[in-house]
Amino acid sequence: KNGTVDMSHGSGGRAMAQLIAEVFQKYLNNELLAQGNDQALFMPPAGRLVMSTDGHVISPLFFPGGDIGSLAVHGTVNDVAMAGARPLYLAAGFILEEGFPLCELVRIVESMAHAANAAGVPIVTGDTKVVERGKGDGVFITTTGIGVVPDGIAISGDRARPGDAILVSGSMGDHGVAILSKRENLSFGTEIQSDSAALHDLVAAMIDVAPEIRCLRDPTRGGLATTLNELAHQSGVGMQIREQAIPVRPEVAAACELLGLDPLYVANEGKLVAICPAERAEALLSSMRAHPKGTASAIIGEVVEDELHFVQMETGFGGSRIVDWLAGEQLPRIC
Amino acid sequence: KNGTVDMSHGSGGRAMAQLIAEVFQKYLNNELLAQGNDQALFMPPAGRLVMSTDGHVISPLFFPGGDIGSLAVHGTVNDVAMAGARPLYLAAGFILEEGFPLCELVRIVESMAHAANAAGVPIVTGDTKVVERGKGDGVFITTTGIGVVPDGIAISGDRARPGDAILVSGSMGDHGVAILSKRENLSFGTEIQSDSAALHDLVAAMIDVAPEIRCLRDPTRGGLATTLNELAHQSGVGMQIREQAIPVRPEVAAACELLGLDPLYVANEGKLVAICPAERAEALLSSMRAHPKGTASAIIGEVVEDELHFVQMETGFGGSRIVDWLAGEQLPRIC
Ligand SMILES: Nc1ncnc2c1ncn2[C@@H]1O[C@H](COP(=O)(O)OP(=O)(O)OP(=O)(O)O)[C@@H](O)[C@H]1O
Ligand SMILES: Nc1ncnc2c1ncn2[C@@H]1O[C@H](COP(=O)(O)OP(=O)(O)OP(=O)(O)O)[C@@H](O)[C@H]1O
Ligand SMILES: [Mg+2]
Ligand SMILES: [Mg+2]
Ligand SMILES: [Mg+2]
Ligand SMILES: [Mg+2]
Ligand SMILES: [Mg+2]
Ligand SMILES: [Mg+2]
Repeated sequence: KNGTVDMSHGSGGRAMAQLIAEVFQKYLNNELLAQGNDQALFMPPAGRLVMSTDGHVISPLFFPGGDIGSLAVHGTVNDVAMAGARPLYLAAGFILEEGFPLCELVRIVESMAHAANAAGVPIVTGDTKVVERGKGDGVFITTTGIGVVPDGIAISGDRARPGDAILVSGSMGDHGVAILSKRENLSFGTEIQSDSAALHDLVAAMIDVAPEIRCLRDPTRGGLATTLNELAHQSGVGMQIREQAIPVRPEVAAACELLGLDPLYVANEGKLVAICPAERAEALLSSMRAHPKGTASAIIGEVVEDELHFVQMETGFGGSRIVDWLAGEQLPRIC
Repeated sequence: KNGTVDMSHGSGGRAMAQLIAEVFQKYLNNELLAQGNDQALFMPPAGRLVMSTDGHVISPLFFPGGDIGSLAVHGTVNDVAMAGARPLYLAAGFILEEGFPLCELVRIVESMAHAANAAGVPIVTGDTKVVERGKGDGVFITTTGIGVVPDGIAISGDRARPGDAILVSGSMGDHGVAILSKRENLSFGTEIQSDSAALHDLVAAMIDVAPEIRCLRDPTRGGLATTLNELAHQSGVGMQIREQAIPVRPEVAAACELLGLDPLYVANEGKLVAICPAERAEALLSSMRAHPKGTASAIIGEVVEDELHFVQMETGFGGSRIVDWLAGEQLPRIC
């Protein structure tokens, strides 16, 4: 073992078996992974299942508040949780670049293991491929998750109805600004941390109080603005939000000003948008604020009738503007 | 749309939504994918489930007998099937390189859709990331599958017992030799085709006749030799195989000779190894030969007691040699 990934680590032979045993199985360590077959076998709980997948190609690999390993766990746990589901298991496929330092790989896998343990969602099967130098970028991780949806829960992007309340679980833009600051070596006095976090426990607390939740979505690439447009489009409704109600940390707002970014379009990795019947909004908000991952939750607006499915925002000055989908590329390789 | 992938196709915004709608959803088209949420929701059949994932980084992307799209479907369908399971659903995560021609992407997605339809295993959820030119290699596809294991079936790599028969479902080495020939622009008179194929229907026919099958594994990276060593190690047994019983096409044998390869170490993508109690071997063999994907099936040896877990082979000349795990890297980027 000479300290870096080489092509033999993807050969299917002895070197790969050793890497899997000494790095992946060692840290990700769990009974299902230890079965050592071409697949993990388990008995799922009764009920509807969901499945979701996300590739992770973030650059840099390590950033304030996380790394590609923890992000790859949180990202997929969250997409599973956005159905109101309890995440059960993860699969992880690694694409390594020849020459990648093994010590960095170990750091990433340890961090993944830590995030998976903390979330209670084991990584039960995996895959390891190696590409030549210059044909990848260190490491890419694709995670796939499955989860079980509690009976009586029907959460989907097409269920928003005029009159419903729109909530967010905290401040917008932290993840993207943290990555960009790290990438560009910017410093804004206090270091801005990614909000990367697993939200399934917050979701469980929310559906406990408000099983009538209609939509849940994590505003990742494209940010809050794009997520609201997606939901408006999918449900065939409009939305009316209030700029002043949207939580944005002052340091994130300042960084965005400087970088020419709009925090509403910046990716988040530990926040969610919820839409629920108006009469349940206050109860839902309280349950969110009572949860450590939702302390800065807010009601930011309501669903309205609109044939054009516009998202409109009342600005700080009492005016109103249309908040469109993200156009072009704002922040590449953010997740 | 200017004909190639650009960074905005990974932005999370409008360009990505358009790519997903006009390429991925258009060709992969199915009800679950059309839900359009962050996850696919379905009611699984009762029973034990399996989950498996594989990244695909094959180079070249198009080869005789398939392409990265069909391979990404077959590869994961097969790993699910190697538990005796009926594959249910696939997830697919794409990592695209900036500048990749959209027309090639469409060809690949069409081929994936075709393979998924032919296998009856829809791609129900996906993800699309884009990396800068020189940080990827055209396209990488990670597929994850889930499947359901019929009651009464217990297939696992640790179940081989001394006396059991070892079978293969056809000729060894076709896939790897096809890729290498294409890569090196070699021609051997007749074009050698990859054996890339979905084996779940063959497996279903096999467990119908021989539900007592102990182990199933697809000899992909590392080839037959490595797969047998894995199974011997996992079950704590030795194996005795007969070289002359192992099917190898004459053109593959000739190409291997020329390329300095051993067909026992070359990857297959449409073959399986099966281990079953000796008394069921003939019946199992007949069922395999009766299936279009198993016409060249053969009994190649038996499981023996061996504390050292060696795989030994009786050679053509009546001698015997140890068949070790693949060491080093034989054929990079083969799948
Ligand atoms: N990065 C990883 N993390 C955790 N487990 C892994 C990882 N890579 C491989 N494994 C596990 O190691 C075992 C062997 O994986 P491998 O990819 O060789 O099997 P395969 O998919 O059948 O072969 P191939 O990828 O050549 O088709 C499996 O049990 C798999 O879950
Ligand atoms: N390559 C693809 N093939 C099929 N469906 C896809 C593909 N890429 C995305 N999708 C589908 O498009 C929708 C949006 O995917 P997207 O990746 O934007 O969601 P997300 O995972 O919630 O966001 P992010 O990836 O930013 O975390 C999902 O329904 C997803 O299944
Ligand atoms: Mg996601
Ligand atoms: Mg999401
Ligand atoms: Mg694999
Ligand atoms: Mg495989
Ligand atoms: Mg396999
Ligand atoms: Mg995604």
